[in-house]
Amino acid sequence: MSKNRLDKHEGRYAARTYVMRSSAIRELMSLTARPEVISLAGGMPATECFPHEVFDKINVHIGARDMALSLQYGPTEGFDFVKNDIAAVMLEEGAVIDPAHVLITTGAQQGIDLITKTFVDPGDIVLAEGPSYAGALTTFSTYQADVHHLPMDSDGLIVDALEKELDELEVEGRRPKFLYVVPNFSNPAGTTLSLERRKRVVELAAERELLVVEDNPYGLLRFAGEPVPTLLSMDTSDNIVYLGSFSKIISPGIRTGYIVAPPAIYQKTVFGKQATDLCSSPLSQLFVHEFISSGAWKDYVLRQRVLYLSRRDAMLAALEEEFPPGSTWTVPDGGFFVWATLPAPLHTGDLLVKAIEENVAFVAGAGFYVDGRGTRNMRLSFSGQSEERIREGIRRLGAVIRDQLELFEALGFTGPADETHTGTGGS
Amino acid sequence: MSKNRLDKHEGRYAARTYVMRSSAIRELMSLTARPEVISLAGGMPATECFPHEVFDKINVHIGARDMALSLQYGPTEGFDFVKNDIAAVMLEEGAVIDPAHVLITTGAQQGIDLITKTFVDPGDIVLAEGPSYAGALTTFSTYQADVHHLPMDSDGLIVDALEKELDELEVEGRRPKFLYVVPNFSNPAGTTLSLERRKRVVELAAERELLVVEDNPYGLLRFAGEPVPTLLSMDTSDNIVYLGSFSKIISPGIRTGYIVAPPAIYQKTVFGKQATDLCSSPLSQLFVHEFISSGAWKDYVLRQRVLYLSRRDAMLAALEEEFPPGSTWTVPDGGFFVWATLPAPLHTGDLLVKAIEENVAFVAGAGFYVDGRGTRNMRLSFSGQSEERIREGIRRLGAVIRDQLELFEALGFTGPADETHTGTGGS
Repeated sequence: MSKNRLDKHEGRYAARTYVMRSSAIRELMSLTARPEVISLAGGMPATECFPHEVFDKINVHIGARDMALSLQYGPTEGFDFVKNDIAAVMLEEGAVIDPAHVLITTGAQQGIDLITKTFVDPGDIVLAEGPSYAGALTTFSTYQADVHHLPMDSDGLIVDALEKELDELEVEGRRPKFLYVVPNFSNPAGTTLSLERRKRVVELAAERELLVVEDNPYGLLRFAGEPVPTLLSMDTSDNIVYLGSFSKIISPGIRTGYIVAPPAIYQKTVFGKQATDLCSSPLSQLFVHEFISSGAWKDYVLRQRVLYLSRRDAMLAALEEEFPPGSTWTVPDGGFFVWATLPAPLHTGDLLVKAIEENVAFVAGAGFYVDGRGTRNMRLSFSGQSEERIREGIRRLGAVIRDQLELFEALGFTGPADETHTGTGGS
Repeated sequence: MSKNRLDKHEGRYAARTYVMRSSAIRELMSLTARPEVISLAGGMPATECFPHEVFDKINVHIGARDMALSLQYGPTEGFDFVKNDIAAVMLEEGAVIDPAHVLITTGAQQGIDLITKTFVDPGDIVLAEGPSYAGALTTFSTYQADVHHLPMDSDGLIVDALEKELDELEVEGRRPKFLYVVPNFSNPAGTTLSLERRKRVVELAAERELLVVEDNPYGLLRFAGEPVPTLLSMDTSDNIVYLGSFSKIISPGIRTGYIVAPPAIYQKTVFGKQATDLCSSPLSQLFVHEFISSGAWKDYVLRQRVLYLSRRDAMLAALEEEFPPGSTWTVPDGGFFVWATLPAPLHTGDLLVKAIEENVAFVAGAGFYVDGRGTRNMRLSFSGQSEERIREGIRRLGAVIRDQLELFEALGFTGPADETHTGTGGS
């Protein structure tokens, strides 16, 4: 009898890029965990800056007042008092929401998973920025979505290209299940969708009945420029599903995020949530509640912004100094990431091997596309390292790049002049 | 243009029983949250018994030594030191495992979800005990599995019936993706699979290349009878996937469980996990680590066993006293649940409405089958209520049942004498 119980592996998990992306990222993360490696790879918030006295106070409060509640099962949707906290946090970004539309999730990653599970059957089209968050692409591939990337520039997603794509699909009699966007300080591009374009995305969503999944983990971490309203706050036609996260403003270790969804979609995601993990951790939810309701979070987020601004500046200055002519990079107004583009014929996948030998790491650009693009790009995260280590990391990286360029020159090799970068800036 | 973005709802989530089961359970849970209701419905551990001083000590230790680690992202598989703790806990049940085969999950429910996601395409057969854990049936239905129930008696799953089912499926050219079992103190039946039958299940798994998902959240909560080894510890052919949980021996509020899987399956579940929620909470994992490695858990589990034994005895004595002749119920040697069967023509779905009016709740039996059986059954949980409240709850329930029987007698009505109960015992 054949071992056909493994059939499923060969079906759903056949997508080779999915497994490769996961393996590569996991391997990279384990390599970069060595202390001698300066990792500009993972998008790690500076959790070591969380105030110890606040951490202890939160736990003492939970222990004294809510121990049994924190250790017990909770409602699938999350606690009402935490939903109220979420509404208060979202108000800081100008979004007025009804807490009844909030589903608390096990990190925003689970939000991506639940929405994809709800909408996507194998072969269905999902529209995504190019480049797009690798973790979302991994989720889309587990449901065998057909991801179509849309181009970006320094103002984020190019909406004309979105409109053209929708027209073309309509001619073919097809339509996408949803558009996935990270409008603020995109992961990995670092760019922000302009106000003008946001208005057009929301209009298009209404006109074409296009569901838009707005993933906004970094919105409150703006350290330059003027705030821009969320797509959700502009929407009047129930076409936006909003994904929020406490990973960047409190901690990823508590695995607490949320979905804000229109009623028609909300109940479906609650059912999906129940079948997936019953409820999100009450202990974590109480941690969130103590931190948010005490007001301590505002001071913490402010200090995080100041910290990340210094780190971004350190990175931009070092790039200016160390990267060779022909390199460009984005200049983010917030968040964690700079997206760099190297001159041809450099290949960031190859460079990564050499970089790790020199004890510095980044994420190669190809992981942020499903179609093989991104080979001249790298994502550089400035959130998790000190200014000094950022400078040293970029110095090592610059040396690796120059070595490689010299080698190419000596060999008389120039590669294809493909263009897959986004954004502005550069040396 | 039609709103075909909702197509997916009408496809994947079309299974009406799934939505109904979820809604009914969620509604029930919200009704039973009223303090005047004695809920024998939810399988709630007695978290109020968790020692306050231990809770505080754990948090102080985490704050002093591992705050940044607890608040940061962790590895997808879980921390190695927690995997070692899990191996130590499993040793208490006589299972020797390699920590490298452990994937830490967001509760054991996520284990069920990841295994189903990995193996089940729509229409695939899953074998399950009848009755079976309602939360597993919900997960199976989200992947559109075709669940076939197998009969049970007081020694758990009837293995002859399993063998017959496999034979019949083979004649049809079909085979199940896996068998899902809760061998110890089954939810909801309360029965335990005998040693003899365990040996036969493991043999059958090897002979037929049948994957067996062994879900064992209650194994360490035995308060009567002799321990029986896990299926995993008897297996030599890599056909068992084991699901473990800290929900019942520490706390469900920390949402921490685990999968122990053979290498061929392990990597697939890790990829699925990464796409679903990246990693399980490091804060929760450190909570587990502090509690397990300090040894404090053994004392706690022992005290929980003693507590649940008293509560079980209170429930059995009250059933003997209050339930009418013709009622039967199982006598569990551990865990949380008694499964009662009422005489015809009683219908536990109808009774539940009246019971809630009398401020007592249980879970009606139909939720533990996919095929409409269980209408004369009820699951009664003794884990979460004091002996006094258990006695009062069963007294109220007995009165509701007798009222209903008197009404039927006055109307001269007798229902169909269907037989869907399992197990022994009864008045």
